[in-house]
Amino acid sequence: MGRWEPGARERLVLAALDLFQEQGYDETTVAQIAERAGLTRSTFFRHFPDKRELLVAGQATMSALLAEGIREAPAGATPLAAVAEGLRRAAKAYGPLSREIAPRLEAVLAASEELRQRNAQKAVGLAAAMEEALVARGVPTVSARLAAELGVLAHHTAFTRWAAESAAPAEAMADYSVEALEELRRAAASLA
Amino acid sequence: MGRWEPGARERLVLAALDLFQEQGYDETTVAQIAERAGLTRSTFFRHFPDKRELLVAGQATMSALLAEGIREAPAGATPLAAVAEGLRRAAKAYGPLSREIAPRLEAVLAASEELRQRNAQKAVGLAAAMEEALVARGVPTVSARLAAELGVLAHHTAFTRWAAESAAPAEAMADYSVEALEELRRAAASLA
Repeated sequence: MGRWEPGARERLVLAALDLFQEQGYDETTVAQIAERAGLTRSTFFRHFPDKRELLVAGQATMSALLAEGIREAPAGATPLAAVAEGLRRAAKAYGPLSREIAPRLEAVLAASEELRQRNAQKAVGLAAAMEEALVARGVPTVSARLAAELGVLAHHTAFTRWAAESAAPAEAMADYSVEALEELRRAAASLA
Repeated sequence: MGRWEPGARERLVLAALDLFQEQGYDETTVAQIAERAGLTRSTFFRHFPDKRELLVAGQATMSALLAEGIREAPAGATPLAAVAEGLRRAAKAYGPLSREIAPRLEAVLAASEELRQRNAQKAVGLAAAMEEALVARGVPTVSARLAAELGVLAHHTAFTRWAAESAAPAEAMADYSVEALEELRRAAASLA
């Protein structure tokens, strides 16, 4: 992990990922995660309500950043330009922990239906945050919903590509996201 | 329920909805659902693996119908015209049980994070089924993914409207879906 020194929260996430991959999500207990991280169960519960929330713990931060970027986009920005600002802002949440987690997340999700369900609901939350921020800018509801979905799709595509590109630094997520959004804009033009 | 006579599966779903609304999802056991439906626990487990699957039990059928409609759309159909065929086909899954459930589903979902997570994952499954069927028609990946998402959004919008319109028969879901898809197509044109 180079010069990056993970704190308690990060150590818990990494320990959980290790255990989910080694022995499965269902078989892993909070006590085991805490032990692997060299921490206590009560420290775990100071950071996370349960093991299901571990891998989506960034959702609230991401939602806030997406909405903030959309809110602060220039007054004349199109809905998709505002979404691009949201994605750029949200990319700031990516750091060394994300870089560690990203390449392993897909395998962990593939092995646990429960985590996939939680992850799907995370996407719903991100879309809702963007839709609300777009509506607040005066974007009509249907367009706001669609632009928000494009934002979520762009984020997912960008994350998958960035995760696979182990040399890409955390800062690159912004460009990956904006590029994926532009691809979706072109696809929307050809579909419509 | 007029002349409609629910079978064991339908009675279990309706009993579960009653109990989820009366006492909450978390507090409701499979034994209670079976008892309320006048059936045994083993009958429950012949129809559903657990209580979480009760309200999304139509997912496999819906996915199959969506894919079938897309597959059998005319060769020259645009991706969105194929999705419209999928939505028409999927609307055939709507019957008296859906009509009973629909107006109550939102309240039940609003009260249970676990059910919302399962429901979000259902949408991911429907989108994947449509995307795969579109790719099989030769639609490029990004366009297929986006067209599938438009299909899911159209389905959700149509379902919400149809659920709120208690006089609308099950057969009306096809028109509601196609209309919602057309609205999204127009929104996509204006966004792009």
